[in-house]
Amino acid sequence: MQLDILYLSREELIDLGLLDFDAALSDVENVFRMLARGEVLMPPKVALEFFSEHGVQKGHLIAMPAYLKSLGVAGIKWAAGFYSNPSIGLPHGMDIVILSDPETGRPLTVMEGALITAVRTGAVAGVGAKYLVSSNSSEATLVGAGVVGRAAAHSLSRALPRVKLRIYDVKVEKAKNVAREVGAEVVDNFEEAVRSSDVIVTATSSASPVVKDEWLKEDAVCIEIGKNEFEDSTVLRADRIIVDYWEQVKAREWTSLSRLSRQGLLSEEKVENIAYIVAQGGARGRGLKFFSPIGMACEDLIVAFRLYRRALEKGVGVKIPLWRSSDWL
Amino acid sequence: MQLDILYLSREELIDLGLLDFDAALSDVENVFRMLARGEVLMPPKVALEFFSEHGVQKGHLIAMPAYLKSLGVAGIKWAAGFYSNPSIGLPHGMDIVILSDPETGRPLTVMEGALITAVRTGAVAGVGAKYLVSSNSSEATLVGAGVVGRAAAHSLSRALPRVKLRIYDVKVEKAKNVAREVGAEVVDNFEEAVRSSDVIVTATSSASPVVKDEWLKEDAVCIEIGKNEFEDSTVLRADRIIVDYWEQVKAREWTSLSRLSRQGLLSEEKVENIAYIVAQGGARGRGLKFFSPIGMACEDLIVAFRLYRRALEKGVGVKIPLWRSSDWL
Repeated sequence: MQLDILYLSREELIDLGLLDFDAALSDVENVFRMLARGEVLMPPKVALEFFSEHGVQKGHLIAMPAYLKSLGVAGIKWAAGFYSNPSIGLPHGMDIVILSDPETGRPLTVMEGALITAVRTGAVAGVGAKYLVSSNSSEATLVGAGVVGRAAAHSLSRALPRVKLRIYDVKVEKAKNVAREVGAEVVDNFEEAVRSSDVIVTATSSASPVVKDEWLKEDAVCIEIGKNEFEDSTVLRADRIIVDYWEQVKAREWTSLSRLSRQGLLSEEKVENIAYIVAQGGARGRGLKFFSPIGMACEDLIVAFRLYRRALEKGVGVKIPLWRSSDWL
Repeated sequence: MQLDILYLSREELIDLGLLDFDAALSDVENVFRMLARGEVLMPPKVALEFFSEHGVQKGHLIAMPAYLKSLGVAGIKWAAGFYSNPSIGLPHGMDIVILSDPETGRPLTVMEGALITAVRTGAVAGVGAKYLVSSNSSEATLVGAGVVGRAAAHSLSRALPRVKLRIYDVKVEKAKNVAREVGAEVVDNFEEAVRSSDVIVTATSSASPVVKDEWLKEDAVCIEIGKNEFEDSTVLRADRIIVDYWEQVKAREWTSLSRLSRQGLLSEEKVENIAYIVAQGGARGRGLKFFSPIGMACEDLIVAFRLYRRALEKGVGVKIPLWRSSDWL
């Protein structure tokens, strides 16, 4: 008997609503609640790290499996991130998502995963902002208008509808395009923008801090989507430190949180989980907040599952056979 | 710019030589040598385990990534195994393999993985037999004529061309069919067959031992492809205990080796690695040998990579687009 899986390309996913950021925000919020209720089985990611002959890190391939019990779907994202890709015309991230039936293990669908990654990462910043920002916040600055920054801009403008969003990128054209899409303002002077912002979201590819600690308002909400974009002093003086998956953050050597923890400068007990904060209705009080999500498979899978179900409803996608009628069954 | 991946179904893989067991034996032997030379990056598998409401294990989904440095290919197998599938007309195992370019992380191909799994698992038994069996061995018995047993029969008949192969299965028709395919004999009396055999290969779905310790010849080579198909007493009195990936075997709670090790009955120092035995030219001396491979991603990937390269040469497979010309790049 022939057994098919459904293949969904990026264009098909967009057609099915991948760029519906309200839906993505709702997905991420829901999966945080599922996490807080213990409805997600998600072992730590496993990474293959690639180095040049001279020991320089070139990139990684990461296996990210998860099982969303209450939705009845399991799956994996196989995620690539290679730093020099943009210089040869390829995106930094190239991912594949597979969804599987948790009753039989049957693979249901294979889909392009890089845009799912960007969208859910932006949505995580949006959900974080929604639950961490105090009600009198009026200004937000986003730095980085690449794919993830663009997704963050869409998410933030929806998650914080009453907050003025400003966007900065060293490539001004990029910032302008994204700002136009979401009705935001372009920033010329990044320092000044940060100095007057209640929320700062960083989505850069910088390997060193882009936001100076001294620029930050006392009650700023700092959301770090890239890596190590805030100074250690900001992390160390933050009143609340929030992550998505502490065991995972700690295990990745390059995160400033893991380094500060290993150095004994940061107590693990201080680290909070965004899922519990969302489940408890938020943490909108005063004080400096630092939210540094590493990204979780469950976020990818909940978005992927919504699109897969819509694909079945609408008959979108290409059926590809696992096998036709092999006698090796 | 459009970016495609190549999809290969089971029938296409067969067309490309998946059932060429000489090639599979050679692949597995080669990847063992690569392992021994340190040319394989392969973190432990990560499993999602599924249980019924009553706590009974239903199955698992396993992420198996690896990087074959000397071949220049990385990838992952996403492997399902669900015990009750055969009762609803689905195979126990349903797997997907993805190969990725280790220079950019770009996904190259997605393929049906369950038949790759069966073939490489059979080939591991064949390579094990080839390197563990003494030159005066004359009889081998295989129990289990399912998909994996069938692959083992093909592998053993090639790996041990001068050894008389006999096949047993509770379902006699299955044993007959496989025996016919490989020119082997069907066994009526399993005990008698084991008693006269120099090599015993088990590929059953039994959850408890199928080979009695007292049946075994003093110098028997026992190769366990299923789980816990030999008695503890056999394991404990074996002169040599060989696995493929000890950290992995130890981590899986259901293996008899991990249980005996936890109970302090088996010293880890006694456990040998098949890769080093192959690299050293074999371990063909006297004494009882027990080889219990758990299966490794590198075995799947080397087979998958051979077929992928052939697919490119022959123009076989279906090109599917990751994206066509998305502006979200």
